[in-house]
Amino acid sequence: MLEKIKRIGVLTSGGDAPGMNAAIRAVVRSCAYYDIECLGVYRGYQGLIEGDFEVLNARSVRNIINKGGTFLKSARSKEFRTPEGRAKAALKLKEAAVDALIVIGGDGTFTGAIFLEKEHGIPVVGIPGTIDNDINGTDYTIGYDTALNTVVDAIDKIRDTASSHDRLFLVEVMGRDAGDIALNAGIGAGAEEILIPEEDMGIERMMDSLEKSRKTGKTSSIIVVAEGEKSGKNIFELAEFIGENLEGYDIRVSVLGHIQRGGAPSCYDRVLASKLGVGAVEAILRGENRVMVGITNKIVTSVDFATAIQGSKPMDKELRRVLTITTV
Amino acid sequence: MLEKIKRIGVLTSGGDAPGMNAAIRAVVRSCAYYDIECLGVYRGYQGLIEGDFEVLNARSVRNIINKGGTFLKSARSKEFRTPEGRAKAALKLKEAAVDALIVIGGDGTFTGAIFLEKEHGIPVVGIPGTIDNDINGTDYTIGYDTALNTVVDAIDKIRDTASSHDRLFLVEVMGRDAGDIALNAGIGAGAEEILIPEEDMGIERMMDSLEKSRKTGKTSSIIVVAEGEKSGKNIFELAEFIGENLEGYDIRVSVLGHIQRGGAPSCYDRVLASKLGVGAVEAILRGENRVMVGITNKIVTSVDFATAIQGSKPMDKELRRVLTITTV
Amino acid sequence: MLEKIKRIGVLTSGGDAPGMNAAIRAVVRSCAYYDIECLGVYRGYQGLIEGDFEVLNARSVRNIINKGGTFLKSARSKEFRTPEGRAKAALKLKEAAVDALIVIGGDGTFTGAIFLEKEHGIPVVGIPGTIDNDINGTDYTIGYDTALNTVVDAIDKIRDTASSHDRLFLVEVMGRDAGDIALNAGIGAGAEEILIPEEDMGIERMMDSLEKSRKTGKTSSIIVVAEGEKSGKNIFELAEFIGENLEGYDIRVSVLGHIQRGGAPSCYDRVLASKLGVGAVEAILRGENRVMVGITNKIVTSVDFATAIQGSKPMDKELRRVLTITTV
Amino acid sequence: MLEKIKRIGVLTSGGDAPGMNAAIRAVVRSCAYYDIECLGVYRGYQGLIEGDFEVLNARSVRNIINKGGTFLKSARSKEFRTPEGRAKAALKLKEAAVDALIVIGGDGTFTGAIFLEKEHGIPVVGIPGTIDNDINGTDYTIGYDTALNTVVDAIDKIRDTASSHDRLFLVEVMGRDAGDIALNAGIGAGAEEILIPEEDMGIERMMDSLEKSRKTGKTSSIIVVAEGEKSGKNIFELAEFIGENLEGYDIRVSVLGHIQRGGAPSCYDRVLASKLGVGAVEAILRGENRVMVGITNKIVTSVDFATAIQGSKPMDKELRRVLTITTV
Repeated sequence: MLEKIKRIGVLTSGGDAPGMNAAIRAVVRSCAYYDIECLGVYRGYQGLIEGDFEVLNARSVRNIINKGGTFLKSARSKEFRTPEGRAKAALKLKEAAVDALIVIGGDGTFTGAIFLEKEHGIPVVGIPGTIDNDINGTDYTIGYDTALNTVVDAIDKIRDTASSHDRLFLVEVMGRDAGDIALNAGIGAGAEEILIPEEDMGIERMMDSLEKSRKTGKTSSIIVVAEGEKSGKNIFELAEFIGENLEGYDIRVSVLGHIQRGGAPSCYDRVLASKLGVGAVEAILRGENRVMVGITNKIVTSVDFATAIQGSKPMDKELRRVLTITTV
Repeated sequence: MLEKIKRIGVLTSGGDAPGMNAAIRAVVRSCAYYDIECLGVYRGYQGLIEGDFEVLNARSVRNIINKGGTFLKSARSKEFRTPEGRAKAALKLKEAAVDALIVIGGDGTFTGAIFLEKEHGIPVVGIPGTIDNDINGTDYTIGYDTALNTVVDAIDKIRDTASSHDRLFLVEVMGRDAGDIALNAGIGAGAEEILIPEEDMGIERMMDSLEKSRKTGKTSSIIVVAEGEKSGKNIFELAEFIGENLEGYDIRVSVLGHIQRGGAPSCYDRVLASKLGVGAVEAILRGENRVMVGITNKIVTSVDFATAIQGSKPMDKELRRVLTITTV
Repeated sequence: MLEKIKRIGVLTSGGDAPGMNAAIRAVVRSCAYYDIECLGVYRGYQGLIEGDFEVLNARSVRNIINKGGTFLKSARSKEFRTPEGRAKAALKLKEAAVDALIVIGGDGTFTGAIFLEKEHGIPVVGIPGTIDNDINGTDYTIGYDTALNTVVDAIDKIRDTASSHDRLFLVEVMGRDAGDIALNAGIGAGAEEILIPEEDMGIERMMDSLEKSRKTGKTSSIIVVAEGEKSGKNIFELAEFIGENLEGYDIRVSVLGHIQRGGAPSCYDRVLASKLGVGAVEAILRGENRVMVGITNKIVTSVDFATAIQGSKPMDKELRRVLTITTV
Repeated sequence: MLEKIKRIGVLTSGGDAPGMNAAIRAVVRSCAYYDIECLGVYRGYQGLIEGDFEVLNARSVRNIINKGGTFLKSARSKEFRTPEGRAKAALKLKEAAVDALIVIGGDGTFTGAIFLEKEHGIPVVGIPGTIDNDINGTDYTIGYDTALNTVVDAIDKIRDTASSHDRLFLVEVMGRDAGDIALNAGIGAGAEEILIPEEDMGIERMMDSLEKSRKTGKTSSIIVVAEGEKSGKNIFELAEFIGENLEGYDIRVSVLGHIQRGGAPSCYDRVLASKLGVGAVEAILRGENRVMVGITNKIVTSVDFATAIQGSKPMDKELRRVLTITTV
């Protein structure tokens, strides 16, 4: 197989994540190392359909390893969700003599790649790049570690003001389907409670806990709420509910929002992205297809796209236990 | 006067600001330097009423110069707004043999001090500590410079994702009455538009500008909106309005919120707080009363409380002009 | 065993590392959770000898999870290296009715604990806290991830000036025996070369590589040097050697030094410290002794002290390969 | 004059400083606003001699306001110090139809500009960009505020480890001729002593002070040393001297070095650079020549180059006093 690969395309798709640039850089440099030409595709699958390509060499990716976002840009493409759209994209790839495609993103990105490969036979390999860490078959996704540090840094700031005023803060963090960010950043930030989508802990339990804290004289608290948590209330309703049912708390809400997606990637994310970028090119050279390269127990591994996108990861019960014990 | 001052009280009141701890430290150390006893008052005017005091010495304030928030805590006190509340506070101060009081905060804080002095003859000196920079008689308030850096850092992160997705972001920053944060941080962050409370720029003008940008192919933009801006719409309504009236923009909203109040103070704020803390103690020793110490053209100066709290600062028109020119 | 443990001592020893406070917090909170009294020992083994103890409860460790350093302080103790010193320490522990001791630190710390247990029968459990990541039996030590981010952030700054001036920078990072920091932070920072103690790569190879880079017009470069690297030259001699043997390079040296030990811990280090703090207390409750709790494949595990301190970890050859490929 | 200016050149020279990119951006945008063409000169005066030019438009400077360093690069040029070198440069400027030149840098940069104007009649305006804040005629230079924050952040980290180990740290910061960085960052970081080039405080006084501290039980301290301080000893000799003459101190040295030059500029530096960039273009349009635009009492002003580069700023005696009082 190795001798047949002359040109590899690379794109980023879905929500951007810190470290995507480091992953692109590693893909480009690995291509240069193995004497393969690398074609950058702008704006994800939409750019694929439009033939928005540029040849990238080792120098094209200088000084980007520390930059947030993705210089290849990302975009949603309705057209690519249709067979016609994907046919156009495949045509553009064939015209550009692209032998295989590396896609960096999340489960939506991989789903698109599966269709492209199935319908048009273009070999595809994926790299998990999303802050949500909601992909199976990899311990960590690129951007997740950085997002955790951003959240913890933001909550450290909020705690300064919470402590100064003896206030209760509800802080909403990202994670529509997965509570990984909420659970880890919440423990890291020393939050007193964490509400996550994987479990319905019952608002009653939280109210009891707050009531108990208040009785011990502790009225400044941080509650981390994942945006998809199951209480059935959004964070502002939750704040109102607590305010109406508990006396003695001065309650504030903070929605961290999009700052969680940006910023210079952490060292871990840069190194992970570098490993997976090299791993993706080498997977193609080994003839692998329809796989995502991920990290498992510190080793770069490949898993079927089908495995990567199926269902959701289970909640880390041990972390839940650590939270309970350390907020005694 | 100097020989009569044996004990000085110090409190923080109103919204907390980074650098308040550095100011307290400088007050405490200056007292020690001049052989005066320093009494820390917890939880602002409420703690004054309750006699929540603690003697502070030079070692009490070690390793706090770099901490956000205020270790003396702050609180709102309804009781202190009544003559009866202030009488209680005055009694506590007399019982504790406090000869003068230093209050760190904003205009509400100074207003309280004016009443306390007028009704009970307790000498008071103020230090401007608020992120809003909305106090007359000082070029800068403690916490303002740090808040600017926090905002700029947050918008840098948002720009990563804005650029990656060609999105338009509306970012709300603090400043109910003053657009200083919005104007300075907006220019610092390279925002394309800034909406501030001091002027009604007209949404039409902004829409024209966005329309023009879009025609030049620029669809990723940052618009900074001060929380009190005069368009008559809140930021979510504004986003909806733009979305309904302009095609081609993918719009997102980010409300920075309370992260702007916390964090390690910048070097500027630490030095300013140190200068003003020394200045406040020395103002008392010179027999000054009902004044705020501030910084004007790099010199520590005193102004009457009446001047400090009157009206609002005018908008910096030169900065407005710089924005117009640099977003050409 | 469980019913016999009424009181646990905890100390930090050796070089401090970000996250030690988070580990102490988790130990204290776990003790509170299991209704055990926790005794903090100040200044490591020296404080043990002097009986410098304080009872810690859940509130003693509020708001420290985000602080660098160790509030229990650390110190070197010559006296503890003697049987007499350890006898004094054991006596103090018995007087204070301490049933078991948790020690947080590196291999020197664990070696001390082994002697204490062997000579005086005091159960000991260790937690790996060192920025060097040079302990066997755990994938990561507390503080290592933070140090990597600190180094990468510093080199990002240096790269700004290196690029502006087309300069070659030699940057010395910590790691006397292990090149983990140099290798990971070097890849993360996009360094062109990394010199580490585990291998003598030969200065010739580096000189060839620099010569080659220069020919392609690239004269701004970062070379990361671990403090213990095997070239036989210190970093200033190395700079001089390169300057004398290669034309066209403007060379500068930067020794990062002690900033690598401090700073707010990363989210990863805070979570790891929380897990291991809980794990250490539970190991004692299970009757374990002479073990270190570590993290292996994301699971908290125990290993014999003997294993933890033996020899050095092998270099990560895969990372070396990733470096070679991505600096093509 | 206004109608005669059709093309303005801009270059950065001397040591790079955070905010230089923001200044270039403002120059380029101001040119666009006034319908003038802007020519970027790479690598300072050396690039001027070589004609290393590129036309810059408003889009050329997108997304650089937050980047450290200078994308136009800087370089030292021996050739430009000769009349022949400057004649070559002048010729290149005339060939490129450049009507006036804006130079961003420090006193060496302005000295070069004075010669170029005197010998060849090319109008020149300067912008002060240097972390040292050692230019007359401006309250602040671009990059200085950022450097202060970088230093304070580094010393905060060092203090974590200093406190944990009860160590005395000597920290060397930049400032060969001016102690502004040492004095401000030292106060900001809560240093116990600050040694600066403007005064010979006498090592004896410092030794007395350390001796006194030690007697009060305080053995962890930070001493900030400007690289040009007048004790006659370099920082390593100083450490040795203290170690030999004072018992009870565990002494460490940290040289902060080049990290002080890099990093994302602070908000203040970005806004200052924006103002001065606009100011420089407008100064040219008003027909000014041989001047530097600076900031005095928050107003953009022009001063003769001769004034800007003469002698050194006096030490801020008030800050020295604040230091003495707050380290009581």
